Amino acid sequence: MVELYDDERTDYLLANNEMKIIQSPTAFAFSLDAVLLADFASIPKKRGAILDLCTGNGVIPLLLSRKTTAKITGVEIQDRIYSMAERNVKLNQLQSQLHMIHGDLKEMQAVLGQSSFDMVTCNPPYFKTPSKTEHNVNEHLTIARHEVHCTLEDVVRACKLHVRPGGKVAMVHRPGRLVDIIELFRKYKIEPKRIQFIYPKQGKEANMLLIEGIRDGKADIKILPPLYIYESDGTYTKQAEEIIYG
Amino acid sequence: MVELYDDERTDYLLANNEMKIIQSPTAFAFSLDAVLLADFASIPKKRGAILDLCTGNGVIPLLLSRKTTAKITGVEIQDRIYSMAERNVKLNQLQSQLHMIHGDLKEMQAVLGQSSFDMVTCNPPYFKTPSKTEHNVNEHLTIARHEVHCTLEDVVRACKLHVRPGGKVAMVHRPGRLVDIIELFRKYKIEPKRIQFIYPKQGKEANMLLIEGIRDGKADIKILPPLYIYESDGTYTKQAEEIIYG
Repeated sequence: MVELYDDERTDYLLANNEMKIIQSPTAFAFSLDAVLLADFASIPKKRGAILDLCTGNGVIPLLLSRKTTAKITGVEIQDRIYSMAERNVKLNQLQSQLHMIHGDLKEMQAVLGQSSFDMVTCNPPYFKTPSKTEHNVNEHLTIARHEVHCTLEDVVRACKLHVRPGGKVAMVHRPGRLVDIIELFRKYKIEPKRIQFIYPKQGKEANMLLIEGIRDGKADIKILPPLYIYESDGTYTKQAEEIIYG
Repeated sequence: MVELYDDERTDYLLANNEMKIIQSPTAFAFSLDAVLLADFASIPKKRGAILDLCTGNGVIPLLLSRKTTAKITGVEIQDRIYSMAERNVKLNQLQSQLHMIHGDLKEMQAVLGQSSFDMVTCNPPYFKTPSKTEHNVNEHLTIARHEVHCTLEDVVRACKLHVRPGGKVAMVHRPGRLVDIIELFRKYKIEPKRIQFIYPKQGKEANMLLIEGIRDGKADIKILPPLYIYESDGTYTKQAEEIIYG
């Protein structure tokens, strides 16, 4: 058994699965975004090494462990949340495949070297941080959601540093940042190859963006069929249900 | 009456409309792409000036004339096709609103000045031209479809030159060039603001891209709901039908 602190609780990670995950409503709880990214990323199935930046409570490494036997490393800057990720590895007895690091993604070269991963995934903070007053009152949530400790450029630079040439980088973000993401991917030689837009329901604008690029890849991008999350009656679409419940 | 040359014929431009258009199967016939762009572009409704680059037989100015009283200028590099555009203006008695210029979009500053349009539209050649042997055997179609006389960068540079600060640029292209388009729009200070992806039918990848930017605009882009052209039985979707037949 692993210990729980403060308001932490253990949830099932997926409805039809034995996997459990420690979450906290005031520190970190995973979102649909992470689930969609784990499904979208073209991960290596067998050998290889995967790096998950901004890993939070380790939700993406946990989800990916069901799809691959590759080793997966997670990096989380917040001590409190890194501790959840560590315990989530133990809770699911995945110590031989998953490895969590407490650290700043901007300073991982000394620890992880460079170009040493076949794939890097990342669900980064979405919001720019123009002023302190706009921050979330809760510091943990603020750091997870706002570019306090790392900007989008820091994230893309770290992806480039750690992925090998020909390796893949997959990210989830808001569509409003599409132009910034594409510009930064190109700047850091990660050529965007696949994009999928997520729409809350038919007839609405996209509210999420999944993008995958290849380091030093050839220019040519595919726009995948759209993914709708909800039917007009508010229930999950069949597509979304398959991704969420497996 | 206007004269027809070679294999030219006169078609109805839209099913429920009196507008006619001169086309030629071997020189230039308009495509769905132009119809979708004319529908997508946020054109000024009353006053203002619109420029259509790579205008071909003038299909976009003709379509836009139904939606606005703004003056519309078209530029076409091929003499033979410019002549069709000229005659299309007369055929539809639009001489007071539409003006066609025979010329190279790279050399229009002397004729059109700079920053003098409220909106620039363009349905440019889609294909890069790596070698002469890959060209279409038909020279007219080759020039319309391949980057023989202008590259994508030439087009975006011309859009920037002719649109006023705060004015709009709308373009149709293939999704495979999304990354290039976004990079060039940013380079020439046309901030992408709206994108719509066109899908041939549900479950397929996008095969067309509509993008609109604002010169010197603020970074923030919306991804509009997808547009599907065909139902699974091969008939037009209701959405597509409304755009095509008005």
